[in-house]
Amino acid sequence: MTTWDSLYARRAGRMRASEIRELLKLLDQPDVISFAGGIPDPELFPSEAFKRAYAEILGGPEAGKALQYGVSEGSLRLRRWIAAHMHDLGIDCSPDNILITSGSQQGLDYIGKLFLSAEDTALVQWPTYLGALQAFNAYEPRFERLDPGANRPAADYADGAHKAGGRVKFAYLSPDFANPTGLTLDLEERRRILSLAGDLNCAIVEDAPYQCLRYEGDPVRPLLALDCEASGGIDRTRTLYCGSFSKSLSPGLRLGWICAASEVVSRLVLIKQASDLNTPVLNQEAMARVAEEHFDTHVANTRSIYKSRRDAMLAALEKHMPEGVRWTKPQGGMFIWMELPDGLDAAELLTASVETARVAFVPGSAFHADGGGANTLRLSFSYADAGKIETGIIRLGNVIAETVTSAL
Amino acid sequence: MTTWDSLYARRAGRMRASEIRELLKLLDQPDVISFAGGIPDPELFPSEAFKRAYAEILGGPEAGKALQYGVSEGSLRLRRWIAAHMHDLGIDCSPDNILITSGSQQGLDYIGKLFLSAEDTALVQWPTYLGALQAFNAYEPRFERLDPGANRPAADYADGAHKAGGRVKFAYLSPDFANPTGLTLDLEERRRILSLAGDLNCAIVEDAPYQCLRYEGDPVRPLLALDCEASGGIDRTRTLYCGSFSKSLSPGLRLGWICAASEVVSRLVLIKQASDLNTPVLNQEAMARVAEEHFDTHVANTRSIYKSRRDAMLAALEKHMPEGVRWTKPQGGMFIWMELPDGLDAAELLTASVETARVAFVPGSAFHADGGGANTLRLSFSYADAGKIETGIIRLGNVIAETVTSAL
Repeated sequence: MTTWDSLYARRAGRMRASEIRELLKLLDQPDVISFAGGIPDPELFPSEAFKRAYAEILGGPEAGKALQYGVSEGSLRLRRWIAAHMHDLGIDCSPDNILITSGSQQGLDYIGKLFLSAEDTALVQWPTYLGALQAFNAYEPRFERLDPGANRPAADYADGAHKAGGRVKFAYLSPDFANPTGLTLDLEERRRILSLAGDLNCAIVEDAPYQCLRYEGDPVRPLLALDCEASGGIDRTRTLYCGSFSKSLSPGLRLGWICAASEVVSRLVLIKQASDLNTPVLNQEAMARVAEEHFDTHVANTRSIYKSRRDAMLAALEKHMPEGVRWTKPQGGMFIWMELPDGLDAAELLTASVETARVAFVPGSAFHADGGGANTLRLSFSYADAGKIETGIIRLGNVIAETVTSAL
Repeated sequence: MTTWDSLYARRAGRMRASEIRELLKLLDQPDVISFAGGIPDPELFPSEAFKRAYAEILGGPEAGKALQYGVSEGSLRLRRWIAAHMHDLGIDCSPDNILITSGSQQGLDYIGKLFLSAEDTALVQWPTYLGALQAFNAYEPRFERLDPGANRPAADYADGAHKAGGRVKFAYLSPDFANPTGLTLDLEERRRILSLAGDLNCAIVEDAPYQCLRYEGDPVRPLLALDCEASGGIDRTRTLYCGSFSKSLSPGLRLGWICAASEVVSRLVLIKQASDLNTPVLNQEAMARVAEEHFDTHVANTRSIYKSRRDAMLAALEKHMPEGVRWTKPQGGMFIWMELPDGLDAAELLTASVETARVAFVPGSAFHADGGGANTLRLSFSYADAGKIETGIIRLGNVIAETVTSAL
């Protein structure tokens, strides 16, 4: 019998199952109200528009081309739409600045692959997107805590990285309605990150899957837009912007993109070629058609529905949470971040919550590169409707109150 | 301005553009007869069946599910079809032994990621599939030449790997109608590989995208089937079988699979989760429907057409190649491998061939991990019809004859 463990690469020791992906299985139990997965409501997907797009492509003269291998950088029609979309965000770019990826998750994997050797350092927030930690983990970097609100000097970061035998390769952030905190970086924090990355001469990874889901307040300019302005054009920037259709039109087609200097995009194309040749042309052509016709109206509708769910959750929290519990008030996205009173453990709470209250969420420690944050948790308001949200928060409030009482 | 080169990981130094992918661009020039890409004829894709499948899914009650995130291991319905297909090949397995990948190329990337640390050795044939070298290169292994026909003792391989600071992690082969040689390993060679891998206690990667495209002779049992028999069941085997729908139904959906012991599949699922979450559910559900209804009849039809093209190319080579040129006679697949007289350089020939004869092929050095094989080249017979094949071979024969003459 094969002794597999002895055959695996060192990096395999850092690979763990995502608690969130495991929690997705709870969604199949109809009596569980899930605030766990950061997943869109499938009722909102424009499935009629996709149906027409696939029928048009597969019934048309380009069917053979759509079912054939394609170029690794992605379909020109979709890259053109994305370049125009980026232009609307204040980023002047061409299709040569765009690589189509199989979801923005694949973009993060490729960025890890391109930049990280085992002795290198990646700056990430505590907490941060779990999937980014998982993607980067395969390349065995050291993680160092990045705090955009603090004024820690670049030399501090550089020294730590140097002592570990490498250097800081990039700072990873999700500036708008971040997963898991729901928080948004203001303009000053963004400028500080750009300045820090300049001092460190490192790249910036701007993960922006929720960018289009703003429910109030003015948009803050993307890091890449600020970088373009300061450096004199996209081909002189240091920022890799990871976009996604998963939270706007559908996660099922697995379509995202990286927008960056053409020099670095051309390296990422080589990685794409070696790792899966290309993202399906058929899906890219279908997404291009649906985005061209429906993106603005569809996203406006999605925004209004998610806004009402966010409002419902914030109102329910205000009403039903026991004292000592705190949470964020996100201006967009899908997530509210909660802090329980010190000493409470969200992982233990989850067991009680699922068993007795039939409510699911994600314990916050999963999002900490150092395993901290035991008393934190993430609530997603995108999946359940407003009625279920209130019911779920009432039940969750009761479980927390009982846990607080029994801990006394 | 960012100095990108200094920011890249070490592995980036091994990433090169595929000459084949670059050559794909020649396909757009209508007067070039391409024997270059190993790509199926799009006229043969069952586009009507795909059209019906997408319409059925997107118009049905499961549309939301098909456009949503899915489980990393892949859709159960498709994994069930694949498990039954593997059973027909003599491999008794369940859906737990199957991971759906975005093409078999992604399977190779994940296998490299799971097994290879930088000091490790991968055994590969000289020549071998270029895409495998590219996928593994990202994990910086040492490549050592594997010759299934020779009786080199395991200790030799082990010593070389040990001196390099690691060990042999796997032997990679494509046993049926290999890319690029078209050659098939006989039963004795397959048993020898199994025995060698047993002695080295390493894995075997059986890359089998062309397995279903046999035009004559009896099928040889897959390495995984022999391994199941010898070891007492799939969960005790050391072979990872990489399958693909790209050469049977369509490469455009980017669907392949790994079939292996459930223990190693569960590790590969973690890699999938971290690198792109899941392959599109919509495509998997569409492929399951098309495979269930059309696989056998469609593949039989494809086989008969490719067989006639192989026959046309072999006949034309016999008739029109100058003396001193040799080539393989494949029993299936898409490729014929050619050896030019010593001293001729296929890369130089390609320039002349495209410019004056308007015929494209792939120079053989691309397929050699050591860059050797300058006088070899690969011809693909899957894309052009029989008439164009004869015209192309006549033109190629003339160019080679002229090159031989001018080299005298």
